[in-house]
Amino acid sequence: MAREKQLIERVAQKLRSRSGAGLRVGIGDDAAVMHSRGRTEWVLTTDAFLENAHFLLHAHPPEAVGYKALARATSDLAAMGARPLYFLLSLALPLSCTGKWFDRFLVGMSRAARSFGLVLAGGDTMRSPLAGINLTVIGDVTPGKAVLRSGARSGDLICVSGTLGEAELGLRLLQRGLHKRRKRKWKRLLQKHLHPEPRLALGQWLAKSGRATAMIDTSDGLSTDLAHVCEASGVGAKVWADRIPKVSVPSDLRKIGLDPLRLALDGGEDYELLFTVPKRLAQHLPRAVHGVPITIIGEITRGKRILLMDDAGRTKAFRARGWDPFRKDSVGK
Amino acid sequence: MAREKQLIERVAQKLRSRSGAGLRVGIGDDAAVMHSRGRTEWVLTTDAFLENAHFLLHAHPPEAVGYKALARATSDLAAMGARPLYFLLSLALPLSCTGKWFDRFLVGMSRAARSFGLVLAGGDTMRSPLAGINLTVIGDVTPGKAVLRSGARSGDLICVSGTLGEAELGLRLLQRGLHKRRKRKWKRLLQKHLHPEPRLALGQWLAKSGRATAMIDTSDGLSTDLAHVCEASGVGAKVWADRIPKVSVPSDLRKIGLDPLRLALDGGEDYELLFTVPKRLAQHLPRAVHGVPITIIGEITRGKRILLMDDAGRTKAFRARGWDPFRKDSVGK
Repeated sequence: MAREKQLIERVAQKLRSRSGAGLRVGIGDDAAVMHSRGRTEWVLTTDAFLENAHFLLHAHPPEAVGYKALARATSDLAAMGARPLYFLLSLALPLSCTGKWFDRFLVGMSRAARSFGLVLAGGDTMRSPLAGINLTVIGDVTPGKAVLRSGARSGDLICVSGTLGEAELGLRLLQRGLHKRRKRKWKRLLQKHLHPEPRLALGQWLAKSGRATAMIDTSDGLSTDLAHVCEASGVGAKVWADRIPKVSVPSDLRKIGLDPLRLALDGGEDYELLFTVPKRLAQHLPRAVHGVPITIIGEITRGKRILLMDDAGRTKAFRARGWDPFRKDSVGK
Repeated sequence: MAREKQLIERVAQKLRSRSGAGLRVGIGDDAAVMHSRGRTEWVLTTDAFLENAHFLLHAHPPEAVGYKALARATSDLAAMGARPLYFLLSLALPLSCTGKWFDRFLVGMSRAARSFGLVLAGGDTMRSPLAGINLTVIGDVTPGKAVLRSGARSGDLICVSGTLGEAELGLRLLQRGLHKRRKRKWKRLLQKHLHPEPRLALGQWLAKSGRATAMIDTSDGLSTDLAHVCEASGVGAKVWADRIPKVSVPSDLRKIGLDPLRLALDGGEDYELLFTVPKRLAQHLPRAVHGVPITIIGEITRGKRILLMDDAGRTKAFRARGWDPFRKDSVGK
């Protein structure tokens, strides 16, 4: 019994499951108990982060695995405009990951929890030949203020936060082992892949101000995530390729086929916010919110087609080529 | 994109994620949104159900895997006295499990959801070489009424619902392939292992009536789960071996070393309720609640020792030998 208990004690110590502040019962009982603070709606999401599918034990630092597992899940709350409160951590680990690796994993997850304002409320630990982390993140939002995928209307402008394709560039460097060869120069290019920042302040600002009609986080890639919004809203879109805030790719990497536009269109895991704003409100949209830049990249259209307009004014269909775990070529990403 | 979308559509169709009744946004968005109904506390739990650790693809019917994954998680709510409301389903599946297996899995899970009053609120799907199901179950309870592990006091009587050891007996038959050889005769012995019933009505009755001072579900086995209650409450216990409602083992199975007492003490996954009741209230305790029998098996004591009194009045230390996923001999159960 000692081993599981010890693991749970290390989790509780590092992630400090505080009761109080709405959490009446934290980890150590059959379930967590929490009460609402005032008039509020609860927002819940669950997300799996799996060895080989999402991360590689030999290539990813344990701190980054712990940080990113929680960041990914919390990004779904950002995309609703919710405020994060609690999380439940379900861990499946090989024995080899229960020592030093686990301590470093917890350091990263603890950093993420503090940064996002999350308190551990409960969890589950299991032994497994492959490491897997399942996170459930719970937040709240003013009733009726959550921003859904389904509210985009023809004429709305399409906006995106930050820069797209940075996480994909980092992943490609890591997959090729290039980050080791030129460590100093390319280390910062890994940053977005290892430590994405859920756009919580921007999401909450958009929800509170009522400016955004639809919102999603760019987890699968712009081409796929925009298709999700259009499908949920029953609309189409056109996007201007030259307006997309694309990752800056060093020239020696362009040579090996890393194209900024493709990375920005189809690269996943940037965890930026993609949202739509009615045209009349767009002119009052600041260029940045809480330091995060906002760029208008296109317009919602009638019909169902999603089009990409290139620099020369040519139009082509904008196929969703982002990540799908069940598509054949997606394994190993 | 088609494959993941199709899987989600099949989930939504079979498990019917209804909005309404407190669920404002169900599956299909970044997160679920729900609002409280009246003055209530939320109860949340998360639970992983993994291939090879908890079930075997070749031995367990897919319907049973779907049913049991949700039953196990919901049992944690029963142990708090909570009413189940919603669940989030996180699925990691090999491609081989996305066809017929998946449909049968959903049939079982749908049966469980209907039976427990649960509505699907959201989820996540992933591809993985090993099947894994993570459930987050959300319920509610009248504020202050949740029954914790930590409330047992010296002099309280220890009670258990149903019969202990039945699930373990079923598992042993299945592991030895004996259920196939004498299918008709032993099929019902598998029932508790394949289709455990979370004691929701009993748990809610105990919470509402305020009779139980501490409660846990017997997921790891009586010896381990009683130790959890004693540790959380800072007390000891004595248990009368002859009073434990033990599984009835057919004589031809006793010959191969299946001992009813050992099965009842250390066998996991019965998902019965183990709870403590102040002595003055115990005399008014009915013998069954909603058809589920209740048996008094022991008494909470001062100090930290947990003792087992055998039929001859002899006392011995009652070691926790139930299931621990990180103990060496636990793999494969």
